Amino acid sequence: MHLQKYEKIPRATIARLAVYVQELEVMEQQGIKVISSEKLAWSCGVNPSQIRKDLAYFGEFGVRGVGYYVYELREAIKQSLGLDRTWNVVMVGVGNLGRALLRHQLLRKRGFVIVAAFDCDPFKIGEEIAGIEVQCSSKLPQSTIDMGVEIGIITTPPERAQRAANYLIEGGIKGIVNFAPSRITAPENVVVEYVDFIHNLFSVAFNITQHQIKGLL
Amino acid sequence: MHLQKYEKIPRATIARLAVYVQELEVMEQQGIKVISSEKLAWSCGVNPSQIRKDLAYFGEFGVRGVGYYVYELREAIKQSLGLDRTWNVVMVGVGNLGRALLRHQLLRKRGFVIVAAFDCDPFKIGEEIAGIEVQCSSKLPQSTIDMGVEIGIITTPPERAQRAANYLIEGGIKGIVNFAPSRITAPENVVVEYVDFIHNLFSVAFNITQHQIKGLL
Repeated sequence: MHLQKYEKIPRATIARLAVYVQELEVMEQQGIKVISSEKLAWSCGVNPSQIRKDLAYFGEFGVRGVGYYVYELREAIKQSLGLDRTWNVVMVGVGNLGRALLRHQLLRKRGFVIVAAFDCDPFKIGEEIAGIEVQCSSKLPQSTIDMGVEIGIITTPPERAQRAANYLIEGGIKGIVNFAPSRITAPENVVVEYVDFIHNLFSVAFNITQHQIKGLL
Repeated sequence: MHLQKYEKIPRATIARLAVYVQELEVMEQQGIKVISSEKLAWSCGVNPSQIRKDLAYFGEFGVRGVGYYVYELREAIKQSLGLDRTWNVVMVGVGNLGRALLRHQLLRKRGFVIVAAFDCDPFKIGEEIAGIEVQCSSKLPQSTIDMGVEIGIITTPPERAQRAANYLIEGGIKGIVNFAPSRITAPENVVVEYVDFIHNLFSVAFNITQHQIKGLL
């Protein structure tokens, strides 16, 4: 099992790999050493052929007639995703969502450590949340350069997301996760991901509507 | 433009439709009445053929040589997604994330109204957040039946997500959006969506790593 020079991996595969890591960790905690692809698939809510297809991007996994070794598979996926290390993260926008993320224990558990938080509201600057002092946004670029931070999280209101992105880009950030419900523009070498849970609500509403239409037919 | 008896729509299409609605609303606020598919595509971060393909699931949109009528397209997408109405939502788990969502203005703006919040922590019961009083989780099933609520949001710790789901199912809920990082089991007629922003961080980390590997080659 080794890191390959892989090509484009579908986004949906990355999302599923995140689920696999999560479920493998639960199994490890339960003392499970080996898991069949059927059982792993079931607990991840996918079918076994999907798991095999997803893992095939990264190399050969699993032993015929045995299944997957829980620890080895988890480590291999983490290595493949660049998660066998810690990533320092800065946050811009300390509103309700920003506060919830600062206090979220899963981020750190997954290797993402928020090292600084910024906001332009003078009432928030100086406040300490989960051990992190909120700093003035204008200090962001120099601060991220000094700390060598690679990932920025935007949790500002939508109308301030682009300004936040500009600060992050100026600070040499390589990837942005934007929780604000607005598109941002960034240079090609900066990776941008959008988190939008509204679309999950849309999807539920859509599927309920579909069920109801079918029920009427 | 009318609602069709559509078949399976890819999840990615639903997610993009959510982005189209969002961008069309921004355009409407800016007083834009007509938009070319190129401009709409650009502002949504997709290519024009993708938009045409996504919309084709729902009917005929756009006028050759003109583009899309902003208001009409937005309304048509909303109708297609079952968003031309309000959805009552209940929340289980009033931690940091739950509080952030209760205070989130976008949910209501998009037609999802949180009408009740539940938690099993006696220190939280009775507390009022964004005008909603936290109630004891044991009251959930009867309460959702009485109010005719169709969607439930789970924001509990992972180990309590299934119990929350059981309450919701008992309460006749038709769809669940699970923010807790654990899988839940539900009957086939209950729609389940998982929100996991960790996978967006995974994706950014993976892509930064890829860029760095390429830079070294």
